[in-house]
Amino acid sequence: MFVRNAWYVAAWADEVSGKPLARRICNEPGVLYRDTAGKAAALIDMCCHRGAPLHMGQVVEQGLECGYHGLIFGTDGACVRIPGQDRIPERTRVRAFPLVEMDGFLWIWPGDAEKADPASIVRYPWHNDTQNWPNKHTMYPIKASAMLMVDNLMDLTHLGYVHGSTIGGNPAIHVEAKMETTRTAMGLKFTRWMLNSVPPPTYTRAAKFEGRIDRAQMFEFIAPCSIHQLSAADDAGAYANGLTERSKIQFRLFHGLTPETDTTCHYFWSTANGFRPEDPATTEQLFNEIAGAFLEDKAIVEGQQAMLTERGETDLVDIVSDATRLHMRRTVERLIAEGSQSLAAE
Amino acid sequence: MFVRNAWYVAAWADEVSGKPLARRICNEPGVLYRDTAGKAAALIDMCCHRGAPLHMGQVVEQGLECGYHGLIFGTDGACVRIPGQDRIPERTRVRAFPLVEMDGFLWIWPGDAEKADPASIVRYPWHNDTQNWPNKHTMYPIKASAMLMVDNLMDLTHLGYVHGSTIGGNPAIHVEAKMETTRTAMGLKFTRWMLNSVPPPTYTRAAKFEGRIDRAQMFEFIAPCSIHQLSAADDAGAYANGLTERSKIQFRLFHGLTPETDTTCHYFWSTANGFRPEDPATTEQLFNEIAGAFLEDKAIVEGQQAMLTERGETDLVDIVSDATRLHMRRTVERLIAEGSQSLAAE
Amino acid sequence: MFVRNAWYVAAWADEVSGKPLARRICNEPGVLYRDTAGKAAALIDMCCHRGAPLHMGQVVEQGLECGYHGLIFGTDGACVRIPGQDRIPERTRVRAFPLVEMDGFLWIWPGDAEKADPASIVRYPWHNDTQNWPNKHTMYPIKASAMLMVDNLMDLTHLGYVHGSTIGGNPAIHVEAKMETTRTAMGLKFTRWMLNSVPPPTYTRAAKFEGRIDRAQMFEFIAPCSIHQLSAADDAGAYANGLTERSKIQFRLFHGLTPETDTTCHYFWSTANGFRPEDPATTEQLFNEIAGAFLEDKAIVEGQQAMLTERGETDLVDIVSDATRLHMRRTVERLIAEGSQSLAAE
Repeated sequence: MFVRNAWYVAAWADEVSGKPLARRICNEPGVLYRDTAGKAAALIDMCCHRGAPLHMGQVVEQGLECGYHGLIFGTDGACVRIPGQDRIPERTRVRAFPLVEMDGFLWIWPGDAEKADPASIVRYPWHNDTQNWPNKHTMYPIKASAMLMVDNLMDLTHLGYVHGSTIGGNPAIHVEAKMETTRTAMGLKFTRWMLNSVPPPTYTRAAKFEGRIDRAQMFEFIAPCSIHQLSAADDAGAYANGLTERSKIQFRLFHGLTPETDTTCHYFWSTANGFRPEDPATTEQLFNEIAGAFLEDKAIVEGQQAMLTERGETDLVDIVSDATRLHMRRTVERLIAEGSQSLAAE
Repeated sequence: MFVRNAWYVAAWADEVSGKPLARRICNEPGVLYRDTAGKAAALIDMCCHRGAPLHMGQVVEQGLECGYHGLIFGTDGACVRIPGQDRIPERTRVRAFPLVEMDGFLWIWPGDAEKADPASIVRYPWHNDTQNWPNKHTMYPIKASAMLMVDNLMDLTHLGYVHGSTIGGNPAIHVEAKMETTRTAMGLKFTRWMLNSVPPPTYTRAAKFEGRIDRAQMFEFIAPCSIHQLSAADDAGAYANGLTERSKIQFRLFHGLTPETDTTCHYFWSTANGFRPEDPATTEQLFNEIAGAFLEDKAIVEGQQAMLTERGETDLVDIVSDATRLHMRRTVERLIAEGSQSLAAE
Repeated sequence: MFVRNAWYVAAWADEVSGKPLARRICNEPGVLYRDTAGKAAALIDMCCHRGAPLHMGQVVEQGLECGYHGLIFGTDGACVRIPGQDRIPERTRVRAFPLVEMDGFLWIWPGDAEKADPASIVRYPWHNDTQNWPNKHTMYPIKASAMLMVDNLMDLTHLGYVHGSTIGGNPAIHVEAKMETTRTAMGLKFTRWMLNSVPPPTYTRAAKFEGRIDRAQMFEFIAPCSIHQLSAADDAGAYANGLTERSKIQFRLFHGLTPETDTTCHYFWSTANGFRPEDPATTEQLFNEIAGAFLEDKAIVEGQQAMLTERGETDLVDIVSDATRLHMRRTVERLIAEGSQSLAAE
């Protein structure tokens, strides 16, 4: 079960070129490509003639040419050429998905095309502000459902256990963090305050803190599958009156979890260095630290998916730290029930 | 669904020796071997005692000995020895398939044994005429149904798209080729004329043509799964009155597509050099060119099978170039409906 | 279908340390570990909070800590700590399996815990007598059901066919061996006498026999899945009045077949050198000979399983040498029907 009438990250804009790229989204085999004018498009990855995968074809002047018998399709999915035949029947077409390029992403709408409103795409302007927020990105293929990965990000008590040697540090800090949660139309926001705490190894490496630190994590979940994160840290005492404008450590993470199948997903993520933007080495190091930490998430969540696939989720026990996760799940379930992104218009 | 009452290529004769060979045909696990007299046989690859695969056994004087507890079976499938037991119950037998060695093939009949008439096997004498038609052969395992591979050979407009850099060349030549089609009792024949056309890269390499060429391809489909091909080319104008007796380029291809399972098959193919038979290098080069081109077919058809397995064939759109393919399919469907090779006797 | 109310070998005792080990037993995913006091335990390998595999966690002072959100479980499966929460609801527990460490094994009871009586575990004292029976052990993962592996050991006529070049030798010797069989409460015992026979290659290598030998094999099958074996050989004539106290060749084998799934199992086996105990090289050589031979069993039985999975067992034909095997099967079927190990108490 997916929320189908929603925008998902299909790809990083720079992943897609004139060479077609196969990518499955919400269990639909898709092909992403750019036409000769550079416009990105997403079609079902199956020719309507004999079923050959369109990603095995090539982009030509008129559109995407099937690599088997040469039919050509436009970015709207309509066939514009059948070799050896003048008439092109109306039904000679493949499904095209609404696709919007924005903020370094290609956003795809796997549901009813007529409901797709590009204005409802949530912006992520920091990707474009490379002077103040130089950033790097990648995609991890995950053998677990997108929901389990969102779960992971909604309960940060895992940091001390999964990421003890990287971004996590002392478990107690994360378990005892003070949570401030706000519900929103499309999900929720929460801030976690870890004041006067011991810095995790990665923070010490990055900012050379000498003593304890004040630390804050601000998360916004936007249903069904985006999470915007701002993490900040400064010397203990700095956040006595809330976050300051600029901290010794401040970086942003984008998390986009796009369902591939019911039990696999694409994890699009980026890091943006907001504390030493003039230093490319810091931008690189931030990305590399997170890259290692997210492999730890990948491992545990894939293990979790394998168990849940075999034994189901019905006998599991919720605990106090599940509160945010459960609110997130209810929001997504409501969207699935409504079959739409109608909450966005409320 | 397979045509079961038909002869299929089970193996190249030289693939099968005293060492048993496991091969699945029409979804039946088979074992092919030669007895000590050199006679080839095909049995179900499962001992009737405890189910061990017979291909893990060995050929002994009395027959094929199971590698687990030593039961021995004759080429008719009857058990001839049970270690430690004098009486051999009648039902101690495994299924034997009719098997005929001819023209370098081992032909197998997976259907009702009493209907198997070796006289109905279509001959391929060029394999035996190594002086005028020196030849080479191999088998490609294909992760696609035999029918999709026959489809491939019934619509040669694919040559320009799938084989652009090898045997195909300019797409328009193949799309616009003049087709002459004749229906036969067991399928169809067609000739494709490409007069005054630009030679494909492989032809130029082989015959050093200096200008345009006349080119012809003669195909005969013999249901359910054999295709005999003669390809020829000469300087432009040479075929003004039809094919000449000897052309600068002339070679034969045998294509045998034997179902392994519903979605996989064995592709037996050979090349026979009829234009420079005295030159082993040409025989070798012809084989190598085709070997590369057929890997291109394998790739696209396997991609097609994966898509059709997932999404089915019902919404596909036929085009003009499918006419021959559709006649082939109807012939095979009729044979399946009749459950026999009765057309052969008409 | 497994006999669930029975003791199975879960692991060799020396396989399990403070680092948790995932192992599936009778289709239940289990995790084996030792607590900080060295006590071995077996739990379901799935945290009751969010389903993460417990083998990805770590052993801490209080118990086994989940690697995702830090819940800790005792060896009885009860949760003893939930990070960030004082109250631990009663149902916050995972299933614990009865586990007993004895004779170098960890024995597990996958059935109803209240029926598990450690006194019913059949002892194997030779593992502890390293002076007279120095021994080595390992586990082979087998892609075949435990029953097919027990079958293998109940019909030794396979020795001449499967192990011709190793421990088997001449097929006729094994087929014609004199069998003495005794039924027991939990299975059966049999002795095979091969008097005045040609020694197999491994025996000749080990004891440098110059002529024919007397050879005996004593097997005891203890349902559902243990087999104790004593093999002995001496110069021809030595066993005229039965086995002598000490033979030129005498060694013991333990075979424990533990179901992993319906079609896979763990094959725990050990060799104990009782004829040249003071010589470590003999102990090593004996183990290595058997290690090679059992790979031969693994190969044929895995081939058998693949065939039986596809085609079933219903049409198979029993032969004379199946008598012992069939008695073993009936014993196991009776235990499954009774759902208990009640025969042990008769």
